[in-house]
Amino acid sequence: MPIPQRVQLIDVGPRDGLQNEKQPVPAAVKIELVHRLQAAGLTEIEITSFVSPKWVPQMADNGEVMAGIQRQSGVRYSVLTPNLQGFEAALQTRPDEIVVFGAASEAFSLKNINCSIAESIERFAPVVQAALAAGIAVRGAMSCTVGCPYEGDVAPERVAYLAGLMKQIGVQRVDVADTIGVGTPLKVQKAIQATQQHFGVDHICGHFHDTYGQALSNTLAALQMGVWNFQSSVAGLGGCPYAKGATGNVATEDVVYLLHGMGIETGIDLDKLIDAGAFISDFLGRPSGSRVAKAILNKRAG
Amino acid sequence: MPIPQRVQLIDVGPRDGLQNEKQPVPAAVKIELVHRLQAAGLTEIEITSFVSPKWVPQMADNGEVMAGIQRQSGVRYSVLTPNLQGFEAALQTRPDEIVVFGAASEAFSLKNINCSIAESIERFAPVVQAALAAGIAVRGAMSCTVGCPYEGDVAPERVAYLAGLMKQIGVQRVDVADTIGVGTPLKVQKAIQATQQHFGVDHICGHFHDTYGQALSNTLAALQMGVWNFQSSVAGLGGCPYAKGATGNVATEDVVYLLHGMGIETGIDLDKLIDAGAFISDFLGRPSGSRVAKAILNKRAG
Repeated sequence: MPIPQRVQLIDVGPRDGLQNEKQPVPAAVKIELVHRLQAAGLTEIEITSFVSPKWVPQMADNGEVMAGIQRQSGVRYSVLTPNLQGFEAALQTRPDEIVVFGAASEAFSLKNINCSIAESIERFAPVVQAALAAGIAVRGAMSCTVGCPYEGDVAPERVAYLAGLMKQIGVQRVDVADTIGVGTPLKVQKAIQATQQHFGVDHICGHFHDTYGQALSNTLAALQMGVWNFQSSVAGLGGCPYAKGATGNVATEDVVYLLHGMGIETGIDLDKLIDAGAFISDFLGRPSGSRVAKAILNKRAG
Repeated sequence: MPIPQRVQLIDVGPRDGLQNEKQPVPAAVKIELVHRLQAAGLTEIEITSFVSPKWVPQMADNGEVMAGIQRQSGVRYSVLTPNLQGFEAALQTRPDEIVVFGAASEAFSLKNINCSIAESIERFAPVVQAALAAGIAVRGAMSCTVGCPYEGDVAPERVAYLAGLMKQIGVQRVDVADTIGVGTPLKVQKAIQATQQHFGVDHICGHFHDTYGQALSNTLAALQMGVWNFQSSVAGLGGCPYAKGATGNVATEDVVYLLHGMGIETGIDLDKLIDAGAFISDFLGRPSGSRVAKAILNKRAG
């Protein structure tokens, strides 16, 4: 399988990255971050979540953020919609894509959304239907496709089962997520292979956390299977809620460096991306989670 | 090329990791670190350097450290020897292997050891000869095989040239080192391929720095070429002298996690290795540079 010559990156920093942030991040800062990401060449950005502010207060400004973004043609703005009510609210803000979600681990599904995997996906069916009817694309985030904080290893069969349910309700493409970052190359390849029972490789996104430092080797392993869509978070925003102080999302800067180093096009300007990461890291008052950003900012400082 | 089923790791922490450490590390602490590494299952450890204490004061206790180690059978203890005088001193301490070195970048060679690549290797010829005559193995560390802090990209032809010189003077195996951690998988594969003009894959060690977070993807790329010897540093000891505060050596813990996750044997007990890393990190008073150690120590702390 030849390695893809071009990769599409989806920056999930504004949503997945910031959602667990304790200190309030003003809408203006989120909007500025999105502007900087698109100026750096990102053409897919996960902006916010239409979930109850009771559960995720950081995303309570979802409408304000969506309204404040100066949209660029050719950029896809996606939002998370946990239910029909959230979808109705999201619809008013004209997202290009909505994201529904499910876990490959039964224990994770029960602990986190209090229902079985099958029930959770069934509940999304009307959301997906409504989105497709409105001409909005639908992505399905599949969490815990390699490991689960409660169950340990997750069998590829469970990933295939979840992918099948996603396909049934009309989801157009799926994220194969290693939510707790425990995956290594061969395990990640098995999760992708299982997903391919229901989705072609062009409709699979890799979403690898860097908790154990494995995200880039997993990215390489996925590239070698022909996967060319990946999610990452600028400055590595978003820690790991299952291991305090540990790394969560892989940093977009680190993925871009890997890809450019391999001669793979992304359309992204790494220097501008590092500036975007420095902007939000400065706001949050902590160093970037990106090793590339650290190395290049050190070099710039001389 | 099938991926190797077993990998041999060489921990360079006690030497490469500690040599630039500003605070004095007592010989007893170094000895304890070596003991903990071998208890964790490491069977090759780079112990110290027989270089002038004027240049590397941290290694002035080389004889004391070598004498203090309770050696285990089946473990290989190596030392760096920059010249014949150093070799003579090293010989008294009965190392299993000596390490000579050279750079693939002319600019790096001139700046760091004030002579051309060819001259630097020529000077090592009598050291190698003396070691082989004494029945001691000889490894050649080839630095800057992918990138150089002064020259930028280093051409594979320069790596082949250096490997050829190493071969000529009798070096038995070589390290393909990405000294500044700028490499990505395809570039690293080209450096290894160039080295294979003179050394079989069984006599090539990968030595990848993690400055840009790429070390594990480079390790995967090397494994895919059949390389099964790698160097790493417990707790990621040894920063990058070319980018202040940046990461240097890849952490042994992170490499072991990758390998075990892929079902590759190392003979290493990851939990004991993490304890060894915690021991030296605690002594140095800073967090481990290993993401795996951080994640697992967090989990242990509950």
